[in-house]
Amino acid sequence: MPTMSEKILAKASGKDKVEAGDIIIANIDIAMTHDLTGPLSVQSFEKIGAEKVWDASKIVIPFDHQVPADSIDSANNHILMREFVKKQGIEHFYDVNAGVCHQILPEKGHVVPGDVIVGADSHTCTHGALGAFATGIGSTDMAMVFAEGNLWFKVPETNRFNITGELKDNVYAKDVILHIIGKMGADGSTYKACEFAGETISDMTVSDRMVLCNMAIEMGGKTGLVEPDEKTIAYVEKRSNKPYEVFKTDLDSSSLNIIDIDVGDLEPQIACPHNVDNVRPISEVDTEIDQVFLGSCTNGRLSDLRDAAKILKGNKVAKGTRMLVIPASKEVYSKALDEGLLKIFVDAGALVSAPCCGPCLGGHTGIIGPGEISLSTSNRNFKGRQGSPDGKVYLSSAAVAAASAIEGRIVAPE
Amino acid sequence: MPTMSEKILAKASGKDKVEAGDIIIANIDIAMTHDLTGPLSVQSFEKIGAEKVWDASKIVIPFDHQVPADSIDSANNHILMREFVKKQGIEHFYDVNAGVCHQILPEKGHVVPGDVIVGADSHTCTHGALGAFATGIGSTDMAMVFAEGNLWFKVPETNRFNITGELKDNVYAKDVILHIIGKMGADGSTYKACEFAGETISDMTVSDRMVLCNMAIEMGGKTGLVEPDEKTIAYVEKRSNKPYEVFKTDLDSSSLNIIDIDVGDLEPQIACPHNVDNVRPISEVDTEIDQVFLGSCTNGRLSDLRDAAKILKGNKVAKGTRMLVIPASKEVYSKALDEGLLKIFVDAGALVSAPCCGPCLGGHTGIIGPGEISLSTSNRNFKGRQGSPDGKVYLSSAAVAAASAIEGRIVAPE
Repeated sequence: MPTMSEKILAKASGKDKVEAGDIIIANIDIAMTHDLTGPLSVQSFEKIGAEKVWDASKIVIPFDHQVPADSIDSANNHILMREFVKKQGIEHFYDVNAGVCHQILPEKGHVVPGDVIVGADSHTCTHGALGAFATGIGSTDMAMVFAEGNLWFKVPETNRFNITGELKDNVYAKDVILHIIGKMGADGSTYKACEFAGETISDMTVSDRMVLCNMAIEMGGKTGLVEPDEKTIAYVEKRSNKPYEVFKTDLDSSSLNIIDIDVGDLEPQIACPHNVDNVRPISEVDTEIDQVFLGSCTNGRLSDLRDAAKILKGNKVAKGTRMLVIPASKEVYSKALDEGLLKIFVDAGALVSAPCCGPCLGGHTGIIGPGEISLSTSNRNFKGRQGSPDGKVYLSSAAVAAASAIEGRIVAPE
Repeated sequence: MPTMSEKILAKASGKDKVEAGDIIIANIDIAMTHDLTGPLSVQSFEKIGAEKVWDASKIVIPFDHQVPADSIDSANNHILMREFVKKQGIEHFYDVNAGVCHQILPEKGHVVPGDVIVGADSHTCTHGALGAFATGIGSTDMAMVFAEGNLWFKVPETNRFNITGELKDNVYAKDVILHIIGKMGADGSTYKACEFAGETISDMTVSDRMVLCNMAIEMGGKTGLVEPDEKTIAYVEKRSNKPYEVFKTDLDSSSLNIIDIDVGDLEPQIACPHNVDNVRPISEVDTEIDQVFLGSCTNGRLSDLRDAAKILKGNKVAKGTRMLVIPASKEVYSKALDEGLLKIFVDAGALVSAPCCGPCLGGHTGIIGPGEISLSTSNRNFKGRQGSPDGKVYLSSAAVAAASAIEGRIVAPE
């Protein structure tokens, strides 16, 4: 009767069975850190007197937050991490040209069903879309993982969102997850494993499922999860030769809370400033925008770029509005280039940058100033998240971002 | 008997004749400022109590140094400049997606032969490649230009570089100008108009001539100049409908110093740390490199990207070396995309960013850390120019940059 989280954590802790609330020590299959959180992990690793990482083949380090280096401090962080990579013999290292960590991990085959994955980044929950138990941890916890290869967890209870209904035209996974977060609130799933299930999810692509799981943390979730199906297996077998194990939730589990949501009538959703759970249907939002950001670990994948390009083709970004397109990885960039999508963006007047986190975290590449309004396909709109605390960030799907860029105000695609 | 500088400045000051050493007031045809120097110009303009600019149609404002905004400060500068543009009715405004100022000016037809052009940027001398008198001025001087439309100049003497000899394969305009600067020294043409003439220059494209004029400032030149010919006129008539006037130098001018240089035997040249005039033939340079930057107002044009792509096609950037490609403008980016050059760069493992000044000035997008070595197609290698003062910058042509990226060390193209 366990949930899939309980089954994965039981396996990872070498037990026959674990139950929600148990404190367990789980072996880690993949430990990920990036250029921003990595240096503290490395420094902590050295501080505890550790010398060799437990398993260099299970550590993945992509540079994505401040790439290419935007300051001497960033360059120093990069140097420190490159030295660590070299010293420890870490083979899965992705330098400044590769892309966003949460795109790199599944794309390069590091994520398979049944894995326990920890990342020193809060959106590590993304990888549950492939049926792994994946969660964000602190940089100092990561130092312990680097040293020991395991970490303690309290086994979470599960909120299983049973999603039904066929999505209307121009309504996407992003709208579904924004709707759920708006309904649940920012603390509506605190420390819960958030499973996304039901016919709507079955119909979704792996990319769509990543959008859902990516944002589980925005309602407090410990992880996001989707039960593996043939789409998952097809994705994984194309990209990974790691062994995997498929776990599914027993619906009679006592630690399971099922939440039914019908999305058949859903219209595009917007998270309004300054909280992700401040969600309104787009028909209730009316604002001009200074900048549109299409990208990030939430919506910077090929399908997002395709959705946006379909709308932008032959159109122009509104005068007075800037549009930044930042593909989530080199692979996405390259395919978008081959398919002519980058050409469509540039012809429309958008600016296409190399894969990186962009303005999502307020680091660089499109910071907004006081009074400016950003419409972003990323995952957080907190005060000051993309620059000035006197700016505002709205969140939407890629399609809404494209349609809005053309109009210079937030509008639904037609 | 006047030089072309004397002729242009005579016309611009409404005199029949001016001579080197004269102090004159010249009417300005184009005044350019960008996002980095613009705010100080605007603040100074307001400080002197000016209200309306003398001629909004003659002011060109491209954003290029910190685009898209890399910090709240940059975003604030952008906001300030956009407000000025709007208030003053400045039509030739190029926002964050357009490209580098010294590429925008000629490309968009703002530069024609016989113009007097001032820019709040030291490499404004670039535009003399089209037979204009173009020079960099300070931001506060620019405020006076905005207010009055004129500026005082001391009419310069001329160093006319008479360049002969056919360039060998893999030797480019960049090698010629580095060779000249190495020979003359950083103060070898202080306050001189630097004319580039001779059969080698006649054979060069307009892009090549821009490379020469761009770097005239690196030997102290007041401006760089090339006498207009049929190539100049073809370039200008395709891009501009402004009236123009062709001026040439009378070789019997008393303010003319002719310097003969034969470049028939020239090999690729490298400017070594930490001065532009520390130039050596590439055969005498041997160093590993951490980063290669292909771009800037010196060598970020389509011809440079073509030269580099020819070498990179089917090859890979060396492991441990990063390569950044930053086309100098949206037009260059777009053509490079159409021609498949961007694809070649990305396939080789380079990172292609949106048009901007990149790491050239140490702003963002590829800052180097302590101990790191950059090979750059830009124009300055001063200590700390691209980031850490404990890093090193070497300057080269686009072809050397590409060949060196493949090897991970500075090498000549084969």
